[in-house]
Amino acid sequence: MPDRTQAPVIAITMGDPAGIGPEVILKAIRQARVRRALQPLLVGVADVFHDCARRSGWRLRLQEYEAGKPRDADAVWIYDIPSAAQLPRPGTPLTPAARKRCGEVSWRALVAAVDLVQRGEAAALVTAPIAKAHWAAAGLKAPGHTELLAHLAGDVAVRMMMAGRRLRVVLMTTHVPLAKVPRLLTTQLVDETIRIAHRALHEQFHLDSPRLAVAGLNPHAGEGGLFGREDQEILLPAVTRARRRGIDVTGPLPADTVFFHAYRGMYDAVLCPYHDQALAPFKLVHFSDGVNVTLGLPFVRTSPDHGTAFDIAGQNRADASSMTAALLLAAELARHQKTRNRQGK
Amino acid sequence: MPDRTQAPVIAITMGDPAGIGPEVILKAIRQARVRRALQPLLVGVADVFHDCARRSGWRLRLQEYEAGKPRDADAVWIYDIPSAAQLPRPGTPLTPAARKRCGEVSWRALVAAVDLVQRGEAAALVTAPIAKAHWAAAGLKAPGHTELLAHLAGDVAVRMMMAGRRLRVVLMTTHVPLAKVPRLLTTQLVDETIRIAHRALHEQFHLDSPRLAVAGLNPHAGEGGLFGREDQEILLPAVTRARRRGIDVTGPLPADTVFFHAYRGMYDAVLCPYHDQALAPFKLVHFSDGVNVTLGLPFVRTSPDHGTAFDIAGQNRADASSMTAALLLAAELARHQKTRNRQGK
Repeated sequence: MPDRTQAPVIAITMGDPAGIGPEVILKAIRQARVRRALQPLLVGVADVFHDCARRSGWRLRLQEYEAGKPRDADAVWIYDIPSAAQLPRPGTPLTPAARKRCGEVSWRALVAAVDLVQRGEAAALVTAPIAKAHWAAAGLKAPGHTELLAHLAGDVAVRMMMAGRRLRVVLMTTHVPLAKVPRLLTTQLVDETIRIAHRALHEQFHLDSPRLAVAGLNPHAGEGGLFGREDQEILLPAVTRARRRGIDVTGPLPADTVFFHAYRGMYDAVLCPYHDQALAPFKLVHFSDGVNVTLGLPFVRTSPDHGTAFDIAGQNRADASSMTAALLLAAELARHQKTRNRQGK
Repeated sequence: MPDRTQAPVIAITMGDPAGIGPEVILKAIRQARVRRALQPLLVGVADVFHDCARRSGWRLRLQEYEAGKPRDADAVWIYDIPSAAQLPRPGTPLTPAARKRCGEVSWRALVAAVDLVQRGEAAALVTAPIAKAHWAAAGLKAPGHTELLAHLAGDVAVRMMMAGRRLRVVLMTTHVPLAKVPRLLTTQLVDETIRIAHRALHEQFHLDSPRLAVAGLNPHAGEGGLFGREDQEILLPAVTRARRRGIDVTGPLPADTVFFHAYRGMYDAVLCPYHDQALAPFKLVHFSDGVNVTLGLPFVRTSPDHGTAFDIAGQNRADASSMTAALLLAAELARHQKTRNRQGK
């Protein structure tokens, strides 16, 4: 067991202050196993965390983060994002002005957290859920976390991975109508997905030679063209190309059996042409402990597999298992990385 | 435990004689739990079963089936389908003439078995895998089991169900390119699927009020039209209509979570717009013990979830777990049905 000062510092953004983000963060970091695995560095409005802690009867002691300065043993670091105006209490009706403030402050927390990670102050980034509508209300152009992170990292290509202990899936397309998927699939898209997944599994998940599977688009991966030609004409050339570059990738494989084989340990990740193909089997196994990982970024970023859940916010009823899993995975991936704090500066 | 003469008679077709059908049948019915649950009535070429039994060292005693005549305690019933010409040994190369004979004899076994079931001699039908190519070589028009069965039963509408102890899925479309699925989906198709599934679960699975879920076509079941309109415009009207008729059906539901809820017992079956959506989660749970059930027929028909596997035929290596599950499910569904033999005539 590493002693606490050895554990990696993980930057954790508050998310939307009116959602369940602050609640699941505090519930997660109160657990001894989380505090053993990592040093949380909360990035958000100190008062939001104080209020949230008070509602659950936790006497939270926050200590303002300063690079290089040691942390008091009983304190949790915070990188405070001051909010000029009062923020709404979770669970209360939101005025247009409140939505805007929520959007602004959650966005500022994210930008600050990325900066901390990029400067090496934190070894990884974990983000609590934001409300896309609040970002839009605040006039922000990025539709969500992933797009903004890709932009802040230098407009890199990214892919969404869902990771659990038994299964990892990577999405080639995400929130698009199923009818559009066949048209969106190109050999280049598949190729890029293989490249991003391989690199992230190698560099961030520390797998020497990641074993990738590509799931077919059509039933039985097209059965030699009988049930559609995309598997042979679009997916296969990308797989062949990647194999020639030395990547251990197989496919396209029939989607009805590839997840079983991955579950049994045959593959480190299954790359999937579309959303439900990846997430139906994934959530069957990892319904509440799945972690969203953004692949392609120059740093580790995980997040829980749920949204702001405004309907239950402020009631101390939110389930922190996905946030806990996101934190533990971030810490695990960060273990081998160097950060200023771990080096004891 | 019912005594053996009380157990339902199950007609079991041999399937393609050159495939693993005869082998998995014999392996399955040799098990005590199978013999306690049902009385097998093999329908096929007696010599094929004898040869197969000999290869595994089983001194199989077959007794020609005669309606109303009791079975010797140590014998297995057979309804012999005589084959004029020699049939190929499993695992040997097949000449065009041999393929034709295999197709003919497996087809005649199926027709005879359906007749036995329709006359009430058997309480259910279990089919071993046939080779579609051999049926075609024999000049048969039906592309496969399901189509022929639907025809023999009076050109009824049928749907494929995959059933296991934890999950049941019903397919709206089967072996078609994914790009064609959105165009094939109509409210009538969905409506008919709901009707067939509800009726079969009620009448054959003996569920008082089956709880059905309809999986959405698009991510998040379209998220209110944001990711495609089919869920609102095609699936929802069918669900609404069925609910008005008193059917307990919910949906369209996001496909990434509906299988988890069904697995946990919330639904008796998930009705799925397309092949991989249903089978990827299903096979993750029931990889080797899934059973194919044809819904819509006036009798119970199950079959194992695999093909002829010519590559391993004749080697005594085939896994009989899916055939075993198919037999046990057929017996379970047939339990409440009356057959001549169970009435002791």
